[in-house]
Amino acid sequence: MALPSSSAEPALAPPGLEGVAVAETTIGDVRGEEGFYHYRGYNAAELAERLSFEQVWHLLIIGELPTPEQLESFRTRTAALRELPAGLAGLLPEIAGGADFVPLNALRTAVSLTADRLGLKPVLDIGQDEVREQALRMTALVPTLLMGMLRASQGRAPVTPDPDLGYAAAYLQMLTGQRPPEAHARALEKYLILTMDHGFNASTFTARVITSTGADMGSALVGAIGALSGPLHGGAPSRALQTLDEIGTEERAYPYLRQKVEAGDRLMGFGHRVYKTDDPRSTLLRKVALEMGGEQARFAEHVEQTALKVLHELKPGRRLYTNVEFYAGVVMNTAGIPREMFTPTFACSRTVGWTAAICEQAANNRLIRPSAIYVGPNPPRPLPPGCGYS
Amino acid sequence: MALPSSSAEPALAPPGLEGVAVAETTIGDVRGEEGFYHYRGYNAAELAERLSFEQVWHLLIIGELPTPEQLESFRTRTAALRELPAGLAGLLPEIAGGADFVPLNALRTAVSLTADRLGLKPVLDIGQDEVREQALRMTALVPTLLMGMLRASQGRAPVTPDPDLGYAAAYLQMLTGQRPPEAHARALEKYLILTMDHGFNASTFTARVITSTGADMGSALVGAIGALSGPLHGGAPSRALQTLDEIGTEERAYPYLRQKVEAGDRLMGFGHRVYKTDDPRSTLLRKVALEMGGEQARFAEHVEQTALKVLHELKPGRRLYTNVEFYAGVVMNTAGIPREMFTPTFACSRTVGWTAAICEQAANNRLIRPSAIYVGPNPPRPLPPGCGYS
Repeated sequence: MALPSSSAEPALAPPGLEGVAVAETTIGDVRGEEGFYHYRGYNAAELAERLSFEQVWHLLIIGELPTPEQLESFRTRTAALRELPAGLAGLLPEIAGGADFVPLNALRTAVSLTADRLGLKPVLDIGQDEVREQALRMTALVPTLLMGMLRASQGRAPVTPDPDLGYAAAYLQMLTGQRPPEAHARALEKYLILTMDHGFNASTFTARVITSTGADMGSALVGAIGALSGPLHGGAPSRALQTLDEIGTEERAYPYLRQKVEAGDRLMGFGHRVYKTDDPRSTLLRKVALEMGGEQARFAEHVEQTALKVLHELKPGRRLYTNVEFYAGVVMNTAGIPREMFTPTFACSRTVGWTAAICEQAANNRLIRPSAIYVGPNPPRPLPPGCGYS
Repeated sequence: MALPSSSAEPALAPPGLEGVAVAETTIGDVRGEEGFYHYRGYNAAELAERLSFEQVWHLLIIGELPTPEQLESFRTRTAALRELPAGLAGLLPEIAGGADFVPLNALRTAVSLTADRLGLKPVLDIGQDEVREQALRMTALVPTLLMGMLRASQGRAPVTPDPDLGYAAAYLQMLTGQRPPEAHARALEKYLILTMDHGFNASTFTARVITSTGADMGSALVGAIGALSGPLHGGAPSRALQTLDEIGTEERAYPYLRQKVEAGDRLMGFGHRVYKTDDPRSTLLRKVALEMGGEQARFAEHVEQTALKVLHELKPGRRLYTNVEFYAGVVMNTAGIPREMFTPTFACSRTVGWTAAICEQAANNRLIRPSAIYVGPNPPRPLPPGCGYS
């Protein structure tokens, strides 16, 4: 193959490949300056506000919004895919590891094992329809795996997912064993849709790099979960909630936040690498949180207003806005999701985006293999005398 | 943070980031036109020919070749790290999955579980010494996990690694239960050293991308194993051996290979993305294979010569040389490693390179997050009428 040799000396790309476009995509896009992101051209916030998880999932994986008939069949089909493959249920308590349960670690292991048990083949060895089928299967299974392990870590039996419930409602039902209130399921559903995809984030990129070697979907997902577990990516909606706890009362908000910013600490839930205006996710999640009612949402709104005031006073000119984390924690908490499951819940919705990226990469693949510039001691260095065998 | 917004329109990087340098490194480098690659400045082939696995492992992870005293202590220390953490041994047969054992899938799951059980913390939350310690631990454990699962899949009990043996000899001892012949251990050791690292390959890049989010070392390794499992990356030393089997006799070599090339099939074991001259790994492995003796090595040499002749006749001007795969299979086979363990054995040695890359990335981190160019329908698309809730 007549490819340029890596011994040619390339210029160093910007650190972290910031601003370097490595692919073309039809999945979606983030327009940070405009406070806008979309899935296949549709405003993602509008999709979250108006459509169901399954409709948007269909859009991302199949490529178009479903007709009513397609939606009906898609719901039935994906609900059936939630059931664990044979032999896995017994291993989930072992993987969860009891009191030391670390949900994302356990999910990483369980997804790896599931992919093995399902016999997922290298994506380059199978057709696009099969890759898409696997995408649905893995996405449908992730909540079952996660909730099964959470309950096992608490010494409780798993809950069989109710096939009559949509993805979001079944998610909560597998958590508690009860059909959730409609309002909780719908609020969670909006959060899940909002977080399905968000441009070329680090975990999505990881999934693409792994897929580009032709590996199976399980390998790509396991890598993506690993990347999401990194504190610089997955974030921590629970940290923003922790801030609310620490503040405690409305009158403490101003002095607490001011002292924090003056000490140079980062305020959890504010600022984003890409958005230089309102994060469209936080705008909708604020509304969702307030609609759910409850003291915490109103208190969060007070803290948010105070934080923005403090940031304006102490960091004038810095465009720091509320990000997705701030109200995500409030919404998930109000819906009854325990804090340690906030980032894992994010992993569940993001699986839709990951699998869409895997399908797209597999359909038009090229190995992603950049290079590095060697800056160590000049080769060839002579070996020190007397260090070898014999 | 005053970073460029992703809404600026970047130019599309070359497909697969070919030739784009994304980092500086002091680990090593591949000079394809010169048929040369090195680890920290030392000719890798010379290291493989003259030094032990532990010496080169020390070079890659600690940064320098060890003194005799450092080597002695490094050997003792890493031999002790081969032992499985408590509670893992009982799960390995379950992960291996009996007759359906897929070694790289099982290794991916086992490494994920091991990292969880060792409580590996996000690399950005710990010091560099601890990251390096984890690198040694995980590298030392990988053969124990792999051989334990292989034997479990065959219904056999695991073999406790002998701490008096070096890495390569212990690898074979855990496979068979016997101390291996010196010549086998030494031949395997050369292969392992040769394949520890090779520039910025796709799995090493994957490990860096995951590490760049601050994730734990387990996440990065699991992603790397996944990437290596892809047919475009991990390759298949067993396929070259299969070609030898199919040819069978010396006189069949020429017609078989000629027919294959005329049919447009790729010859397994020939050609490389980077090397446009002799692959230095194949040069040394040919020598190692012939030194080990045996009919297979001599037959392989005949087939190699014939293949190069056929390629010269039918593809004149194409610089297709024998690559690392061709003799790797012969060497591993002669050392007693079963074919399904060839790529997993490669994963074991490459763990040294992966962990070196993880240490380097963690020591000087920046999130790796490129972007994509959206080429789908123009946003914002209006939702079709009647598709929403309510």
